[in-house]
Amino acid sequence: MSKHLKYINAMRSLSIQAIEKAGQGHTGMAMSACPITYTLFTKFIKISKSSQKWINRDRFVLSAGHGSMSLYSPMHFAGFLSINDIKNHKKKGCKTPGHPEYEENNFVDASTGPLGQGVAMSVGMAIAEKYLSKKFKSLINHYTYCLVGDGCIQEGISYESMSLAGKLGLNKLIVLHDSNDCQLDAKVNEAFNENLELRFKSMNWDYIKCLNDVESIELAIKQAQKNKKPTFIEVKTIIGEGTSCAGCNKSHGLKVDEKEISFFENYFSVKAKGFKFDKEIYNYFNKNVTQRGEKKYQAWKEKIDKLSKENPRIYNEFKKWTSNKFVDVSKILKSDDVNDLQATRDFVGIYMNQISKNRVNDTIIGSADLASATKLSFDVKKNFGIDSKYPEILYGIREFAMSGIQNGILLHGGLRSISSTFLSFSDYMKSSIRLGAMMKLNSSYVFTHDSYQVGGDGPTHQPFDQIPMLRAINGVYLYRPCDKVEALYTLNKLFSTKKETSIGIFTRQPISNVKGTNLDGCKKGGYILQNKSNNDITIAASGSEVGLAFEIANELAKENINVKIVSIISLKKFLENDEKYISNTLSSKYGLLTIEASSDNTWYKMQKYANNYYHQGAYTFGESMDGDQLYKEKGFNKENLISIIKKEIIKE
Amino acid sequence: MSKHLKYINAMRSLSIQAIEKAGQGHTGMAMSACPITYTLFTKFIKISKSSQKWINRDRFVLSAGHGSMSLYSPMHFAGFLSINDIKNHKKKGCKTPGHPEYEENNFVDASTGPLGQGVAMSVGMAIAEKYLSKKFKSLINHYTYCLVGDGCIQEGISYESMSLAGKLGLNKLIVLHDSNDCQLDAKVNEAFNENLELRFKSMNWDYIKCLNDVESIELAIKQAQKNKKPTFIEVKTIIGEGTSCAGCNKSHGLKVDEKEISFFENYFSVKAKGFKFDKEIYNYFNKNVTQRGEKKYQAWKEKIDKLSKENPRIYNEFKKWTSNKFVDVSKILKSDDVNDLQATRDFVGIYMNQISKNRVNDTIIGSADLASATKLSFDVKKNFGIDSKYPEILYGIREFAMSGIQNGILLHGGLRSISSTFLSFSDYMKSSIRLGAMMKLNSSYVFTHDSYQVGGDGPTHQPFDQIPMLRAINGVYLYRPCDKVEALYTLNKLFSTKKETSIGIFTRQPISNVKGTNLDGCKKGGYILQNKSNNDITIAASGSEVGLAFEIANELAKENINVKIVSIISLKKFLENDEKYISNTLSSKYGLLTIEASSDNTWYKMQKYANNYYHQGAYTFGESMDGDQLYKEKGFNKENLISIIKKEIIKE
Repeated sequence: MSKHLKYINAMRSLSIQAIEKAGQGHTGMAMSACPITYTLFTKFIKISKSSQKWINRDRFVLSAGHGSMSLYSPMHFAGFLSINDIKNHKKKGCKTPGHPEYEENNFVDASTGPLGQGVAMSVGMAIAEKYLSKKFKSLINHYTYCLVGDGCIQEGISYESMSLAGKLGLNKLIVLHDSNDCQLDAKVNEAFNENLELRFKSMNWDYIKCLNDVESIELAIKQAQKNKKPTFIEVKTIIGEGTSCAGCNKSHGLKVDEKEISFFENYFSVKAKGFKFDKEIYNYFNKNVTQRGEKKYQAWKEKIDKLSKENPRIYNEFKKWTSNKFVDVSKILKSDDVNDLQATRDFVGIYMNQISKNRVNDTIIGSADLASATKLSFDVKKNFGIDSKYPEILYGIREFAMSGIQNGILLHGGLRSISSTFLSFSDYMKSSIRLGAMMKLNSSYVFTHDSYQVGGDGPTHQPFDQIPMLRAINGVYLYRPCDKVEALYTLNKLFSTKKETSIGIFTRQPISNVKGTNLDGCKKGGYILQNKSNNDITIAASGSEVGLAFEIANELAKENINVKIVSIISLKKFLENDEKYISNTLSSKYGLLTIEASSDNTWYKMQKYANNYYHQGAYTFGESMDGDQLYKEKGFNKENLISIIKKEIIKE
Repeated sequence: MSKHLKYINAMRSLSIQAIEKAGQGHTGMAMSACPITYTLFTKFIKISKSSQKWINRDRFVLSAGHGSMSLYSPMHFAGFLSINDIKNHKKKGCKTPGHPEYEENNFVDASTGPLGQGVAMSVGMAIAEKYLSKKFKSLINHYTYCLVGDGCIQEGISYESMSLAGKLGLNKLIVLHDSNDCQLDAKVNEAFNENLELRFKSMNWDYIKCLNDVESIELAIKQAQKNKKPTFIEVKTIIGEGTSCAGCNKSHGLKVDEKEISFFENYFSVKAKGFKFDKEIYNYFNKNVTQRGEKKYQAWKEKIDKLSKENPRIYNEFKKWTSNKFVDVSKILKSDDVNDLQATRDFVGIYMNQISKNRVNDTIIGSADLASATKLSFDVKKNFGIDSKYPEILYGIREFAMSGIQNGILLHGGLRSISSTFLSFSDYMKSSIRLGAMMKLNSSYVFTHDSYQVGGDGPTHQPFDQIPMLRAINGVYLYRPCDKVEALYTLNKLFSTKKETSIGIFTRQPISNVKGTNLDGCKKGGYILQNKSNNDITIAASGSEVGLAFEIANELAKENINVKIVSIISLKKFLENDEKYISNTLSSKYGLLTIEASSDNTWYKMQKYANNYYHQGAYTFGESMDGDQLYKEKGFNKENLISIIKKEIIKE
C-alpha cells in the first residue's frame, strides 16, 4: 500500500477538510472508501475531462451517495473540480453537493442519495451497454462500476436489480462494497446477518472478498473484469478510519472540528489544513486518471472518425442515437382505422404494433410482468438478449428495480426507455420516478388499469391516490387520454419526451364515445371539445371521465342547458398556460364542474376561474365488485352529477 | 395422495366454478395451490369458527392474494363461508373478494394483492408472536404460515422482510412457495434464475423442497415446525392443473367457460357444475378444520380461565393488550419544562423518553436505521429480542419492509406499533402505508426532516411531494406540529390512533416562536392561534410555517394590518369540520394566505372561504445548500409573503 498511501491520504485529507468547512457531512464513508475510489479512478475507470459525458466512458455510480467526498477528492486532484469547488461543498450553486448530482455536463453518472437505487441505475447502464455494444460493436465497450455501502445492499431495490443482473448475465457490471460493519444506529450485524457469498452465488454473481488495500482491490477488479457474470467485491474497510470514532457507527455522520482534524493529522501523519497539497499529488492524479483517460478517449475518437468514412450508415445511426435523435414515431402512428370504443390500454397495443412494424429498435421497453395486460410490448415472447430483434426486458415482478433500471438506461444515453405496470403498482416505484424527474431524464411510463373500474380485483388494484402522488413530483407530467386520438398523442409523447417524465395513464375498461379530440389541443394540456354559442356550464374532465361529460351534456341538452366540454389530458400542462387561455377555456355562464376519478385536489386550482365550482373526485377505497357499478356508486354517473350541477353550479 | 384427492378436487371444483361464475379470476393458482392450503388447513392451522379473530390462532397470509379461491374453498367446506358467499365471488358486498380482505370479524388475517407484502406482514405477525409469547408465555404460542407465488419472492419487500426474519430467528414463521414455474408474461426462468436453496441459506433460513402431494407437504411442515430458523418450503406445483393450459403461463388468469369446465371434469373425473358436493366432503372439513380448531380454542379458553383465577394481574394485562387497551400516554406526556425553540424531532425524543421512563412496553417501535436521527427510540442500543426491556426493532435500511412488518404486527393484535424514517423515504413505503390504511389498522409513523431546510443533503433528502402523496390516501391523517404542545398532541395521537393511519411530520431544524397552541384546538385539525378584533387577513399554515406566519404578522402589525393566525396541524381533519367552523376559523376582511412547504394542492379547497386567496406551496426540487437560505429562496420568507399579501389579498 505504501506507494499509494500518500495519494489516498491526500484524498482523505481533502475530504475531512471539506466536511469540516461544510459544517456537516458523512465522515465515516469519506474515510473508509477512499482506497476503493482511488484504485478505481487511477487504475481502471476510463473517463475524459474534455468530454465528460463521453458515451463510451466507464460508468461509476456512487450508490452510497453520502460518501460523496470519496468521489470528489480524486476528481479534484484529477482536475475535474477546483479547490473552490471543494471548499463550497454543500453550498449554494456548488459542484460538490452533499450527495452527487447528475448534470448534463459533469462527471457524475447518477444522482444518488436514497439508498439502493444506485445499484438499479448501474444495472440499467450495464443493460444499455450490452445492447448498444451488440449493435455498435467496439464503439460501445465499457464497464459499469458501482460503489455500495451496507445500506444499499439491505434495500429491496438493490436485491431486485441484482437478481435481474444475474439473470441477464451482465458480466461488465462490477459492484464494490464498502463493507465497514457499521450503520447509523448500530453495528451491521445487529440488523443484517446474511452470508453475502452465498447470496451472490444464489443470484448468479461472482463474489470476491478482499482487504482495503490497493493491491487487493486491483486484483479483485481484474478478476471481475474477466468474469462471465456480474461481480460483487466485498472490500473490508474501517468506517471513519483516522477519526476518533474509527470502526464505530458514530463516525457515520461525525461532526469534524479542530480536535478531530488534529486526531486525523496525527493518525495518518498528514496535514489537513488550508486545503494545500503537493504538486506531485496533482501530477500523479493527472497522469493516472486524466491523461490515462484522455488517451483512451482519443483512441476512440480515431475509431469513430475511421468509421465515419468506412461505414457512414452505422456512423450516422450511432451519431443519431447518441445525440438523442430517435425515430420520430409521430410519423408512424395512425389512428384512422382504429376502432374508438376500446379500453385505452388497447390503443397502447395497437400503436406499439405500428411501431414494431416499423422496426423501431432505439427504445428499450419492459414491464414488471404485466406486458400482457398493459399491452406495452413489441412481442412478449422475445426476451432481452443478443437474440432479440427489439429490446424488451422481462423485468419480472420487480417494479421498483424496473424504474431504477430505466433511470440507468437513460443516464447511459443512446437509447430511449418506456416501462409499464398497473397504475396501482406505481406505488412501488415512487422514489425512482422522483429521482428520474430530479435528474431531468426523458423517462416514460405506461400505467394501466386506472381506477375503480378495475372492479373485481378489489381495492388493492383500484388506484385513485396514485395520480396525486405522481403529479406532485416536480417534472412529472401525466397524460390521461380519453380516446384513440389522445392516446396517439400520449404514445408519441412517451417516445419523444425531453427532460420531463411523461406518464401515460390508460384504462382497462372500454371507454364511451367522445368527439372533438385533436392533437393541437392536446399540446395545451387541456382544450375545448364541445362549444356551444351560449355555454351555461363547463365540464372539464380527464381520461375516461370525458365520456361521462358527454353523457351528462347530452342529457342536459334535452333541457336546453348548454354544456361546454373540456378535455384535460394533462392537468399540470394545462395549468401552465397563461391565465387568459385557462380562463377562456373554462368560462361559461354558471360555472364549472371538474371530474377525475382520483384524489388529486390540484383541480381546485380551477375554482378561481368559475363563478360556481364543484369537483367530483375519488377519495375512498373501492371494493371487489363490478367495476362499472362501483364507478357509478362512487358518484361517477350522470344522474348524480346532473343533480350536483343543478344544485351547486346552476343553483336552480 | 389418493385418500386426500377427493377433498382437494372438491376444492378445485369449487374454485373453478366460482371463477366461471365471477366471469374472471386467477384460475392458475386456484388450481395449483389447493394441495398446499388443503394440507395446511386440515392438518395444521388452528383456527376457531366461533372466534375468528382468536388471538392465539395460527396466522395464514395468502401473500399471492390472487390465488384467493385456494383459501376460500377450504373455508367454505369448513363452514366459514356459505355456498352463496362462493357464488358471489367478486360481487358487491361479498365475503369472497378477488383478493382476500382483512375484516375485523372474518377469517382473513391480512389483505393482500400487491405482491410481496404478505411476506412482510407474516414477518410482523411472527415478531408480535415472539414478543407476546415471551411476555404471556403459553397464552400466545402459534405459527405464522405464508403462501407465496413466484411474484412475491421476486419483490424487494419480500427479500427485505425475509432477511430480517432470518436475522431475528423467527423460527415459527413458515413460508410455502407455490412454485409453478410460470408468471404472467413468461416462464419464471426467463426473468428469474436464482438458486432458492442458496438464497435462503444465505439469509439464515431453512429451505425444504417438496412435491405437491399432501404427504410431502405435511412432512415438510412438520420439519419446519421443529426448525430453529424460519423455513421456506418450495412446493413444486403445476399452474392451472386440470385446465387446458396446465403448466402454461396463460393459465394465470385463464377465462373459464363451459369447455374449460368440461376439460376439468374429464381431467379430474369430478363434477364441476351446480356447486353441489357430497355431504361427506363437508363432514371431513368440519372434522379436520373446524372441530380440530375448536378443540384447540376451547383448551386455550380453559387455560385463560385458569389464569384469571391464578394470576389476575397477568390475566388483566393480557385482556387489556388483546382488546387494544394500551397505556394512555396522554397521562404521561408533559410539555411544561420542555424548551420550545428546538427542532420538532427533538420533541419526539423528549416525549419518547417520558414514555420510556414509564415502562410502556405494549408498543413495538422501530426505525429503518434512522432512530438516531428521528429520535423515535426507547434506547437505540437495545435490539429486538428476548433480552430487550422495551420492544424496539432495528429494521436495518429496509423502509418498505418496516412498513409492511408494522402492518403485520398490528394485524396480529395485542400490540401497538410506531415506525420512523425520514419523510423523503416514505416514498419507499407508500404501498404498505396504503395497505395498512385500507385495512383500517391503527398504524403510526414518525417522519422527520420535513422540507427544504434539510439543506446540505440536497434534493434527494428534501421532501415536498411526500405530504400530498400521503394525504391522498384514504384513511391517512398527517399531523405537522408547530411547537412542543402540538408535538405532544401528535405523539399522543400516534400512540392512540384507532382505525386510522396517523403520521407525525417533524422538522430537523429548530422552529421559531409561536403562541396560542392548545390541545383542544388540535382536535379540530386547525384552530386560531392569534385573533384580533378586526382581522384584515388570515394566515393559515402548518408545522414550521406557523412560525413564519407569526413573523409576518409581527411585521404587518407595525403597519396596523391585523393578522389572524391559524395553525393547521392536520389539514384533512380540519377540512372534515362543518362549513361553519371552517369558515369562522378562516374568515377575515381581505382574505386568506395559506403556507405549507409541500406540493399538496388540497389547500386550494380553502379558496371558497376567502374573498382573496393565495397559497404558498413548494413545487420544485431544492438543492444542496444552507437549508434556511434555500427555504427563503423558495418563497418562504416574510418579505416575499408580505408583498404577496399586499398584492394578492389586500390588493392595495
